[in-house]
Amino acid sequence: MSLDVTEIGSIPAAWTRRHLLGLEDLSVEELNILLDSAEMFKEATDDCTRKIQVLTGKTCANLFFENSTRTRTSFSLAMRRLGGDTIDFASGGSSMSKGETIIDTAKNIEAMGIHAVVCRHRTPGTPHLLSNNLNCPVINAGDGPHEHPTQGLLDILTIRQQRGTLAGLTVALVGDIQFSRTARSNIWGLKKLGAHVILCGPATLVSPLWREFGCEVSHNLDEILPRCDVLNLLRIQFERQSTRPFPSVREYAHLYAMDRRRMDRAKDGVLILAPGPINRGVEVTTDVADGPHSLILSQVTNGLAVRMAALWLVCGAAARDNE
Amino acid sequence: MSLDVTEIGSIPAAWTRRHLLGLEDLSVEELNILLDSAEMFKEATDDCTRKIQVLTGKTCANLFFENSTRTRTSFSLAMRRLGGDTIDFASGGSSMSKGETIIDTAKNIEAMGIHAVVCRHRTPGTPHLLSNNLNCPVINAGDGPHEHPTQGLLDILTIRQQRGTLAGLTVALVGDIQFSRTARSNIWGLKKLGAHVILCGPATLVSPLWREFGCEVSHNLDEILPRCDVLNLLRIQFERQSTRPFPSVREYAHLYAMDRRRMDRAKDGVLILAPGPINRGVEVTTDVADGPHSLILSQVTNGLAVRMAALWLVCGAAARDNE
Amino acid sequence: MSLDVTEIGSIPAAWTRRHLLGLEDLSVEELNILLDSAEMFKEATDDCTRKIQVLTGKTCANLFFENSTRTRTSFSLAMRRLGGDTIDFASGGSSMSKGETIIDTAKNIEAMGIHAVVCRHRTPGTPHLLSNNLNCPVINAGDGPHEHPTQGLLDILTIRQQRGTLAGLTVALVGDIQFSRTARSNIWGLKKLGAHVILCGPATLVSPLWREFGCEVSHNLDEILPRCDVLNLLRIQFERQSTRPFPSVREYAHLYAMDRRRMDRAKDGVLILAPGPINRGVEVTTDVADGPHSLILSQVTNGLAVRMAALWLVCGAAARDNE
Repeated sequence: MSLDVTEIGSIPAAWTRRHLLGLEDLSVEELNILLDSAEMFKEATDDCTRKIQVLTGKTCANLFFENSTRTRTSFSLAMRRLGGDTIDFASGGSSMSKGETIIDTAKNIEAMGIHAVVCRHRTPGTPHLLSNNLNCPVINAGDGPHEHPTQGLLDILTIRQQRGTLAGLTVALVGDIQFSRTARSNIWGLKKLGAHVILCGPATLVSPLWREFGCEVSHNLDEILPRCDVLNLLRIQFERQSTRPFPSVREYAHLYAMDRRRMDRAKDGVLILAPGPINRGVEVTTDVADGPHSLILSQVTNGLAVRMAALWLVCGAAARDNE
Repeated sequence: MSLDVTEIGSIPAAWTRRHLLGLEDLSVEELNILLDSAEMFKEATDDCTRKIQVLTGKTCANLFFENSTRTRTSFSLAMRRLGGDTIDFASGGSSMSKGETIIDTAKNIEAMGIHAVVCRHRTPGTPHLLSNNLNCPVINAGDGPHEHPTQGLLDILTIRQQRGTLAGLTVALVGDIQFSRTARSNIWGLKKLGAHVILCGPATLVSPLWREFGCEVSHNLDEILPRCDVLNLLRIQFERQSTRPFPSVREYAHLYAMDRRRMDRAKDGVLILAPGPINRGVEVTTDVADGPHSLILSQVTNGLAVRMAALWLVCGAAARDNE
Repeated sequence: MSLDVTEIGSIPAAWTRRHLLGLEDLSVEELNILLDSAEMFKEATDDCTRKIQVLTGKTCANLFFENSTRTRTSFSLAMRRLGGDTIDFASGGSSMSKGETIIDTAKNIEAMGIHAVVCRHRTPGTPHLLSNNLNCPVINAGDGPHEHPTQGLLDILTIRQQRGTLAGLTVALVGDIQFSRTARSNIWGLKKLGAHVILCGPATLVSPLWREFGCEVSHNLDEILPRCDVLNLLRIQFERQSTRPFPSVREYAHLYAMDRRRMDRAKDGVLILAPGPINRGVEVTTDVADGPHSLILSQVTNGLAVRMAALWLVCGAAARDNE
């Protein structure tokens, strides 16, 4: 922990970004500021159950063009825990259906005295587009299969809390790499922090091209299992796929689900992560999901901490720019 | 009033429940603590129009799997009047549609630092299921036709405010007993507090089996009318019925609607209650609904008071347990 | 500015209205109180980006029976900037679908300790109906094609900020007059404050009957263009029309869109207004919408200021009545 709780109020001088669009662009120092700040807020608020008034009077707009209760709620709660306020813009009820462009929608929201925008959209690059057209900070809450930086950060924070560091760890991302923004954000963050990353799943969901980015690619979970310190079991995103990437769910579960049998062959103290909502019996069986190695609910709480940190940092950088 | 307004901040020692799942299980003392607390909050907040900061910094999640603006809003306002915050989870937008179990959904919400869950679900027992799987308090906001404890309490509070006591009163629940959770919660509460309960409606909606629970059963409103101190006119829940339990709405209204003609034959000072939304001309005619005997809008305000009391008591019990 | 920022807390003695239903009934003095108050709040809150605690503990209900993210959000943010709270009632999820009358719905909401109601409905006169049946203040947020007073006020405020006064200015409302509540509220307000109003659009959307109300009617934008100080480009409300009032969008744009060519022929310093969401390429081309004469985003910020003023004034009048 490089940050002192008593210092809350001014963000670290090394943090200069007004937007959080992805982990691919971040330096190791920036990643560590995000993780340290999240840790600081988690401690200062008793595991994110109390408020800390650092964004009092600020309002954040959730601009979600894809269905999401979980991430949207996590951002809303994070903003409120910081003493701020939130307002939701759903795509259905918005002026977008009256023919307005997304930039116009966002500029209109900003003109209502909004201090930050959290955006989810199925088109990769949408948050980046908004960040080029708004004065206020923009946080990417998922842009198609591209990035979901706060999800990557919360996964990494969860591992760091257990092991102290990411350096030297072997982390397997199992399952749906092809359609997963969570996978991409994890890959960029994990690599920068010194972890060895294995991407594991059926050939239809894991391309050998990933080797060019320094990842190991495997289609056989049982083979890599004994080497893994962490298994991050990605959700099969049935709703994002037009064709079935494997013959049957049962076959997928047979080859890739973490179950008791596989747990016996895994490393002692292996960590089981899964960004919810989980499909019990598909990526993970119930005994493993609810077992002692599972960190699934810690991830949810860390999500709040990471989003508090992200909102605090980008709003702080914007306030500093405006001085 | 056994509670002193100046004592707000610590819940009565006799209240130990962290959940409010129904009135069937409550003791007379617990019922009175709920009613007294509601009365206290109503007085302390000028008929629930002002805030009282007893749950500052706490957040309550509305987990509603059935459509409900009225009850959900009442709970939200109650929590905010206590200085707390609320977050809504609708079934449509939630992760449930991605295959998540309801227990996983609730545990995820709890892991976001939520302090209480208010649950409505069409399946009886759902709030009980959640209470067995969460650490935070759970309040039942209606589980199918089973119970709706805060509705029962607000009806009883409304009667008590007019008559000082429930003991010795004859209260008729008229109409849709079969499909009504409001009826069940009223029955348990009214019986415990010493009222005589008559269930009145067509044979298809009022089973003779209710006699085993100490209720009088009648199919003839005109016959029981002269004996009733209170008439609670339940909504015909057309949306909950697959077959029509009576030949026509007109016939139902002819036999069971409270109208001017029946008011003339009722006891002096009879109290007219109706848990909204009312079908004017079906359970009650407009002149009676808007007349001097009607307590329909008092019920709404009392709903707020009862929910403030319930949230304060269960959150207080949980905080005491955690000390 | 006739109001002093230090006086915030008590509304002007000359303001006695508990409801804001339209601009047609307002006196010039009342219009000026609204505009001056909006200006005051805008200054006092740093362009509506900070909170000012004048309605702390008050709750406003948004009772919107028509889809509207923009206006609803603007009212919600305005109430919160004043230190108050808001609660949303959407028509879809409400008890209206269970057969409740709108007056019953509104009375129920009021009985939950609500201090003001903001209402949008497709039927003209609905806010007026509610104001006759509720004790709390009612603000019209748009009733069919009738009035949308806060939109009229924000347009007028935007002009006044640029020119100091409305007196003597020539303001053209261009496009969809027939179906536009914005047009009606603008007409009443602009005429009272001394502006000359031209209504311009195809004969199917601009009736000659408007001449009886003291407006000039034109079907030829190019003809009136050199005389106009302000052009308010109304949205073609495709969703409100059952038949097409012109042969094609392309023809409409050819005759009425403000583009660079028409800007060259307009007065120096002409002001371009457009109540969003705008259809780029229909009422206005992109270079004009984003150009130096455009006040479109100022209108959005002024909307917040006007709604803060309206909520403060009607709640203040209601509080004074109750003393």
